[in-house]
Amino acid sequence: MTYCVGMLVEGGLVMIADTRTNAGVDNISSYRKLHTLAEADDRLILASTAGNLSITQTALGLLEEGLPREDDDGGRRTLHDVPSMFRAAQLVGDAVRMVREDMRAALEKEKVSAGISVLVGGRIGDAPLKLYHIYSAGNFIECQADQPFLQIGETKYGKPILDRALKYGTPVDEAVKVGLISFDSTIRSNLAVGRPLDLTVLPSDRTLPVIRRRIEADDAYFNDLSARWSLMLNEARDTIPDPPFMGVWREDGPGIAAARRG
Amino acid sequence: MTYCVGMLVEGGLVMIADTRTNAGVDNISSYRKLHTLAEADDRLILASTAGNLSITQTALGLLEEGLPREDDDGGRRTLHDVPSMFRAAQLVGDAVRMVREDMRAALEKEKVSAGISVLVGGRIGDAPLKLYHIYSAGNFIECQADQPFLQIGETKYGKPILDRALKYGTPVDEAVKVGLISFDSTIRSNLAVGRPLDLTVLPSDRTLPVIRRRIEADDAYFNDLSARWSLMLNEARDTIPDPPFMGVWREDGPGIAAARRG
Repeated sequence: MTYCVGMLVEGGLVMIADTRTNAGVDNISSYRKLHTLAEADDRLILASTAGNLSITQTALGLLEEGLPREDDDGGRRTLHDVPSMFRAAQLVGDAVRMVREDMRAALEKEKVSAGISVLVGGRIGDAPLKLYHIYSAGNFIECQADQPFLQIGETKYGKPILDRALKYGTPVDEAVKVGLISFDSTIRSNLAVGRPLDLTVLPSDRTLPVIRRRIEADDAYFNDLSARWSLMLNEARDTIPDPPFMGVWREDGPGIAAARRG
Repeated sequence: MTYCVGMLVEGGLVMIADTRTNAGVDNISSYRKLHTLAEADDRLILASTAGNLSITQTALGLLEEGLPREDDDGGRRTLHDVPSMFRAAQLVGDAVRMVREDMRAALEKEKVSAGISVLVGGRIGDAPLKLYHIYSAGNFIECQADQPFLQIGETKYGKPILDRALKYGTPVDEAVKVGLISFDSTIRSNLAVGRPLDLTVLPSDRTLPVIRRRIEADDAYFNDLSARWSLMLNEARDTIPDPPFMGVWREDGPGIAAARRG
């Protein structure tokens, strides 16, 4: 399993991915799922991947080598040449579809899913930051301000906090915090998602540096966040009044009196 | 979609179910999913259901009429005759399997899933309260103290709060509160789960009354719980410090200074 989230807020793009892979619970390994696909003066293109590991690795390998051109002049289409993030998403979609078509029949015979999902985010030239979700068929959607995040993999445990807390105007450091809380909830509920986490933050303001960080199992900030969140959820729960209709169970409640009379 | 939870804590059994059903997003209705299967002086057996509505209704209808006996003497096996909750779970499993076997081939031709899940809980005679999860094949598992809850339907959004907060020793009114928070998180993240909710609480202490309640869209307690929980999650998030590694983006941070120098 896998959990990856991409958040595109006013101040920047945040991508976080776990590293746990498993083929059954007795075959658990750690693989990087947050990748830099292209990095140059004019571009930084990142991707995080979920699904069949062999398919995602092959698709990334193909992207690195370059996809054949349609005019078949021997040249290659790579992410270093695409003029926009939209074209980058299309190229990643093409690679995903090619690998899937190549492998699907053989994998289906083995009853292995060839499904994958990819988040592609980044910036080319002076254009704004973009974030896309590429599906197994190579089609894709773009993240927009109304719901400024995309998730792939084991998405549900960590979605409530994003639904509640993340807006387009959320400051980037707050977004990183919310993203890490979303990972904390997921890791608690699904063993197949685990640290280390990989985190990359691209600022909208180009004068600021890109932040890359690996959050290991002993990361003091994450451990503190996890402990505080747990403690405060408990406190929050405590301060909500108990259901008034349960009062019938109390010694002085009308239900008990009625039951004892009856 | 559907969300149902059963919680079996020291003080009692709590069962909560939503009422929303949908066949596509343009065909949304409200159906009761928390049912009383048998109620008499010596027993109270409840069930909540998720999955194909026609299959669950047919299985419940069959249980009400009674299943044929194996010796085929014309008598019927019903939940009013079973001597234990274990036998009750088996009988519900038999009904689910019979209906599924009857309908599956026809439904598969229409590409409609015949899968269902049932939570069965209650008490027979002087035996303790029990809670079971019955699967589509009629097999089942029993809820135990290590994880004192079972869920069916859209389970993931509401699982983190149960994982964190619910222990076998949690008082029943606290368990009801935690269960409702779990529904609040699910309702926010999935349109296909919605109020009214049905709630039944069976006390371990037989001198206390059974509580049955329908939580409508205008339920003051639920609305207050939802608003408080939202507010306190926001406060909790605010009190967690921002990630220290984001400090490089601040004017006085080392990264900015380095970036400006570079």
